[in-house]
Amino acid sequence: MILTVTLNAALDITYHVPRLQPHTTHRVGEVVERPGGKGLNVARVLAALGHDTVATGLVGGRTGEALRAHLAAAAPGVVDALVPVGGETRRTIAVVDGESGDATMFNEPGPTVSAQEWAHFQDAYRELLIDAHVVALCGSLPPGLPVGSYAELVRTARSAGVHVLLDTSGEPLRRGIAARPDVIKPNAEELARLTGLTEPLRAAHEARRRGAYAVVASNGPQGLLAVTDEGTWRAAPPARFEGNPTGAGDAAVAGLLSALVEGLPWPERLARAAALSAATVLAPAAGEFDGAAYERLLPQIDTLP
Amino acid sequence: MILTVTLNAALDITYHVPRLQPHTTHRVGEVVERPGGKGLNVARVLAALGHDTVATGLVGGRTGEALRAHLAAAAPGVVDALVPVGGETRRTIAVVDGESGDATMFNEPGPTVSAQEWAHFQDAYRELLIDAHVVALCGSLPPGLPVGSYAELVRTARSAGVHVLLDTSGEPLRRGIAARPDVIKPNAEELARLTGLTEPLRAAHEARRRGAYAVVASNGPQGLLAVTDEGTWRAAPPARFEGNPTGAGDAAVAGLLSALVEGLPWPERLARAAALSAATVLAPAAGEFDGAAYERLLPQIDTLP
Repeated sequence: MILTVTLNAALDITYHVPRLQPHTTHRVGEVVERPGGKGLNVARVLAALGHDTVATGLVGGRTGEALRAHLAAAAPGVVDALVPVGGETRRTIAVVDGESGDATMFNEPGPTVSAQEWAHFQDAYRELLIDAHVVALCGSLPPGLPVGSYAELVRTARSAGVHVLLDTSGEPLRRGIAARPDVIKPNAEELARLTGLTEPLRAAHEARRRGAYAVVASNGPQGLLAVTDEGTWRAAPPARFEGNPTGAGDAAVAGLLSALVEGLPWPERLARAAALSAATVLAPAAGEFDGAAYERLLPQIDTLP
Repeated sequence: MILTVTLNAALDITYHVPRLQPHTTHRVGEVVERPGGKGLNVARVLAALGHDTVATGLVGGRTGEALRAHLAAAAPGVVDALVPVGGETRRTIAVVDGESGDATMFNEPGPTVSAQEWAHFQDAYRELLIDAHVVALCGSLPPGLPVGSYAELVRTARSAGVHVLLDTSGEPLRRGIAARPDVIKPNAEELARLTGLTEPLRAAHEARRRGAYAVVASNGPQGLLAVTDEGTWRAAPPARFEGNPTGAGDAAVAGLLSALVEGLPWPERLARAAALSAATVLAPAAGEFDGAAYERLLPQIDTLP
């Protein structure tokens, strides 16, 4: 099975308002809630592709309960192995302006996790790794967790012989890379911040030098760049798509993992990731992917060395 | 005891952000939750003044559970007689900008209440009226309730011989007045909208003509105007106060009810309402009142015929 880890899961709430006007009162017409956090998004896409998928991470409080109920309803194929904590799972509020279609985001910080809760999670994680072929470690860290937490989880996975993909940013990414993950999937901006190099190919080589076995960098509509010990490839969709990029990066992670467990070579992994990513931008609901668009786009992805 | 009714209770959530910038992502530093809805605010002030207070209304879902937990913690003196519904209690989000101190509000609509739930609430309400000296009907109506719902509750209270105060706005206020409440407490703007008259004294007389036995109109820092069958009075605080006006109107309602059950005459009821209102503006936390300020201000309120 494929394991995804979401340490700072969220309940994503979307408010639709006619027009956002600071310092006024808005009556919200429609309230939409969905399970959020990058690892949960990855798990939903994997389950939709038909993979055995287990989602772990940390959840707590009433918001955590709401998140689990939404996850069970929206992604019944995902096995919920989330670990409870005493704090309250964070909410993210996206206020979507009917005039411009733009979103204004308010992200709560998330629960403060104690050392004991972290030790308890690591026990659960070790158990789950026994049946895992691959694990994806995704998103930000909640308050209270040491910045080296992902590095610990990378080391545990590698000791257990489980292939590990790390998708985070900032200092947790920097520390995580030093623990030698099999794949990292930064976007071009995160990669530049990590390495100080703005040219993606040079930056990817630098990230490999620092410990990542493979680097898959996403660069919005320009597609994906993979720098691996087997070679370098670029995968780009046939056209630029208009749509909502929310979750496109998570769909790419799901594509990489899905193709990996099927034993496909790098160019096909990358093509699947790029097609799923584009099919997510095209889907009407944020974070979903359009299955028909995925099937249509997959053979159209140009994967070049 | 004093009964308060909050048909569209809310979980009030406050986010503090350094600066609100539309169409960007904000990390929320601090999340504050409190029970909201005008009737619950009134109940909190009454309990703080030492009155036997019962809060009823409608609550539902996980947000409703959170609201009840916060109410029990913040106002242990208030007896929770809220009636469950199947829908989800609304949230209100206040985004407070650290630069200007101004709040931007997002108010969810609230649960859709079925005819059966409304009938069930009315049964509970009739039971609660048996021990009530006075009842306050406060705030907006949730979706699904007929616009004449407050009028029904006014009639039920009057049939039971219970003194009834109505504090709502728009069409529910217009219909409610026709059912002959003992007191209405609009602000100057609501009173003008109701009557089409901008001069508060004339507008208050018009509202009495339409059915209200007494009208107490609040006009921000200018204080309160009462037009009753015993006479007309104005109560104003000794100075203009800087502070947060959230809950000042609800504190005034609590002052009127509290003085009424103590058998005080109109001028003293009005003075208490004005002092509590000013002491709420002065309190550091939104919707609380500053007890020392209340004691100090009460003898300073000018109540003039």
